[in-house]
Amino acid sequence: MSGGRLIGVGVGPGDPDLMTLKAVRALREADLVVHFGKNDTPSNARRIAACHLPKGIAELKLCYPVTTEIPKHDESYRTAIAKFYDQASRELATRLDAGKIVAVLCEGDPLFYGSYMHLHTRLAGSYRTEVIAGVTGMSGCWSALRTPIAQGDDVLTVLPGTLSEAELVRRLGDADAAVVMKVGRNLPKIRRALQQSGRLARAVYIERGTMANEVVTPLADKADDRAPYFAIVLVPGWERPS
Amino acid sequence: MSGGRLIGVGVGPGDPDLMTLKAVRALREADLVVHFGKNDTPSNARRIAACHLPKGIAELKLCYPVTTEIPKHDESYRTAIAKFYDQASRELATRLDAGKIVAVLCEGDPLFYGSYMHLHTRLAGSYRTEVIAGVTGMSGCWSALRTPIAQGDDVLTVLPGTLSEAELVRRLGDADAAVVMKVGRNLPKIRRALQQSGRLARAVYIERGTMANEVVTPLADKADDRAPYFAIVLVPGWERPS
Repeated sequence: MSGGRLIGVGVGPGDPDLMTLKAVRALREADLVVHFGKNDTPSNARRIAACHLPKGIAELKLCYPVTTEIPKHDESYRTAIAKFYDQASRELATRLDAGKIVAVLCEGDPLFYGSYMHLHTRLAGSYRTEVIAGVTGMSGCWSALRTPIAQGDDVLTVLPGTLSEAELVRRLGDADAAVVMKVGRNLPKIRRALQQSGRLARAVYIERGTMANEVVTPLADKADDRAPYFAIVLVPGWERPS
Repeated sequence: MSGGRLIGVGVGPGDPDLMTLKAVRALREADLVVHFGKNDTPSNARRIAACHLPKGIAELKLCYPVTTEIPKHDESYRTAIAKFYDQASRELATRLDAGKIVAVLCEGDPLFYGSYMHLHTRLAGSYRTEVIAGVTGMSGCWSALRTPIAQGDDVLTVLPGTLSEAELVRRLGDADAAVVMKVGRNLPKIRRALQQSGRLARAVYIERGTMANEVVTPLADKADDRAPYFAIVLVPGWERPS
C-alpha cells in the first residue's frame, strides 16, 4: 500500500458547528479535499465545511453526470453512475499513489446513504481508508425540532422516499417512529402514504435542517408539494406518557 | 421564563474527538454539567466528555434508582423511574430558576433513545431549551467498521433488543439493513432471532465502538453471550454491486 490515505469526512447536517473535532482536524491534515456536486450547483457538503477549510487547500469537485433526470432503475442511469464512480476512483487513486491524504466531504454521515461509499468500496482494497462518523441529517432535524424521535421499545424505520407508495404505506403503518429521506419530487407520494397509514397528523416536514434558512412545518400545513431532494419528513414515535 | 437554559448535549459514540464543536462550546458556557449513572458506575457520557470539561465546573450526577434489576414493564419499575425523573427535573428547575445554564451530557444523540428526553419533556414548557445533535452510537460503529450500512432504496430498521423474539424475527426479516440497540442480556434472544430470520451471517457485534478498547466481531464468531447494555449489533444492508 502507498502512503496515501482516503478519508470519508462526515460534515454533519448543515450547521458548521455540528462538525466534529475529528472532521475539522482531518481537513487540516488533508492534501486534497473532494466534494460531489452538479455542474451548476454548489456542493452542500462543501458549503457546510467551508469555514473549516484551510486557505488555499487543493480541491476537486466530482460532478455527477446525472441525478434525477433519468429514473434510477433505468439501465442508462446505472451505467452512467457506475462509470462516474469508476473514473472518480481512478482519479483519486493517482493522488493516493502519490502519497496524498484525500478527504472526501460527506453531508451527514459518510456511510448512511452517502455517495462516499461508492468510492470507498472501489478503493478500500488497495489503500488505507478512514471514515469519520458525522451527525446525520435526521439527528440534526429532530434536534432542531427539539422533539424526541424514539424511546424505550420504539422501532425506528428509515425509509427512502423513492420506495413505491404501497411499500411506504405498509412500512409507515408498521413503524413506531419513521424518517423519510430523499423527499424531493416524491413528496406527493409520501404525503398520500402518510395519509393512508394514519401518520400524516404527526408528520413534520424539514428543509435545510440546522441551517440558517431552515424550514420546519407540520406536513399537513404545507400547501405545496415543492421540496428539495435533501428535505426530510419525520414521524416522531415517542410522546411523553401522561 | 427565567434566564436559565437547559441544553441536551450529544457527546457522540465514545471517541472524544467525535464530539461536535457546538457540544464542546456548550460545556464551556455551562454553569452546571449533569450526567446520568448508577451509584457505583461512572457515566459513559461523563467519561467521553471528560477532556472537554472546564476545570472546576460544577457537576451533578443523577443516579438511576433502578436499571435492569426490575423488568421495565413492571409497575414498580415505571413508578420508580417516573419519580426519579420528576425529582431530577425539580432539582434542575431550581438551577434554571437561578438563571443557570444547565448542560446535560448525553451519550450519542440526546433525542435518540436517550434519558435526556425525560427531563426535556418535563422542563421545556417552562424553560428555554436547546438540543445539540450528536453522532449516534450506531454511526460510530459502522464508521469504525468502515462498512456501508444503507444505500439507495435500502430500508434501515432500528430495533431495541428488548423486543420479543417473535417481533425481532419478523422485523429483521423485513429489513434491508438493521441495527439492534440495547443488547446486554438480550443477546441470546437477538442471536436466535438473527438465525431464524437468516441474517446471522451478516451480523456484526460491537462493544464500545470508537473507543480505545472497542470490540468488533462477526456475531457468529462470538463464543459467549456476555454483552454490556450499550453493545450494538449491525446488519449492513448494502453490498457493492458486482
